[in-house]
Amino acid sequence: MSSYQTIELKSTQKIEFIDITARVREMLRTGKSGSGILLVYTPHTTAAVTINENADPAVPHDIGEFLQRLAPQQDYFRHGEGNSPAHIMSSLVGASETLVVNNGEPILGSWQGIFFCEFDGPRQRRVFLKFIPG
Amino acid sequence: MSSYQTIELKSTQKIEFIDITARVREMLRTGKSGSGILLVYTPHTTAAVTINENADPAVPHDIGEFLQRLAPQQDYFRHGEGNSPAHIMSSLVGASETLVVNNGEPILGSWQGIFFCEFDGPRQRRVFLKFIPG
Amino acid sequence: MSSYQTIELKSTQKIEFIDITARVREMLRTGKSGSGILLVYTPHTTAAVTINENADPAVPHDIGEFLQRLAPQQDYFRHGEGNSPAHIMSSLVGASETLVVNNGEPILGSWQGIFFCEFDGPRQRRVFLKFIPG
Repeated sequence: MSSYQTIELKSTQKIEFIDITARVREMLRTGKSGSGILLVYTPHTTAAVTINENADPAVPHDIGEFLQRLAPQQDYFRHGEGNSPAHIMSSLVGASETLVVNNGEPILGSWQGIFFCEFDGPRQRRVFLKFIPG
Repeated sequence: MSSYQTIELKSTQKIEFIDITARVREMLRTGKSGSGILLVYTPHTTAAVTINENADPAVPHDIGEFLQRLAPQQDYFRHGEGNSPAHIMSSLVGASETLVVNNGEPILGSWQGIFFCEFDGPRQRRVFLKFIPG
Repeated sequence: MSSYQTIELKSTQKIEFIDITARVREMLRTGKSGSGILLVYTPHTTAAVTINENADPAVPHDIGEFLQRLAPQQDYFRHGEGNSPAHIMSSLVGASETLVVNNGEPILGSWQGIFFCEFDGPRQRRVFLKFIPG
């Protein structure tokens, strides 16, 4: 993988966790990545990347529902666009995750998947993948 | 350090912050790591890695107690295993931390330690260490 | 960039988000960094680094105000220094962010800026920058 690669996404809901594990695996294989680390980074300020269980869809549902109740719109917010809750969730969850890569495969736990987190959808979104050998 | 290394851990409580700073330092020294970065990653979806004060054990206690009260079990959760709070805490704190390494030593602040965060213990757990020179 | 570089900061408020994007860009250029990743790391346990919108100052204001109300001082805290809220915010937001770097420039989204987050100011603070080519 030279430079960095981009995953294009289309979210369909206000809050949505989109499993991108298969696309990350495929890009690592296509890039013949060897061993190193992989930075999975989203360039949006009302979105995030997280690693959590992708076997039971109830898990990302519960996380999204929790965040929505944790950070509702508030009278004291000054940002005029009305999406301060999404900016807050973005900083709480974080813009990126970094993975161990071995022989072109991400070393994930049995239950771990990689999610793009939409907090202000629906929108067209991107995730950057940057592999560093080592 | 070739490939990646594994720290084996045994948590003894439901919520527990285990200081792994000494083990991380030791593995870096044994691996004759030079300079670069170190990814400290946990492959579990009900755990996390954080960096915080390890001088006063009251600090990790207060963080754990806060998280437990922030994310209790809720009627609206759909995940049947009853550990959605632990999955939520995992995404809030994050599966990994990355450190600056100089001459085989992690560059930590005076008060910083590296913690494995158990949110659904007691369990047998693992942390992966991946050093990237640079 | 050999070894790692340090940004010196002086916060002036208890809770403050300081935009360090321009200084990060400048250090990457001066270091003739090429392509790779950049670790932006703060060595303090009552501070953090986040990526969020830096166009409207209301956004970091709203995030800081939210965190302050989310984690106020509590009777059950054991840490005697009275700054457990700041330690909690540090673990929620995280000690670092990692960026994609292409030809010496961080690949940020249109609205993304890099913030040092002060949670227990005013204080003299530092942020470490570590570039890894790849």
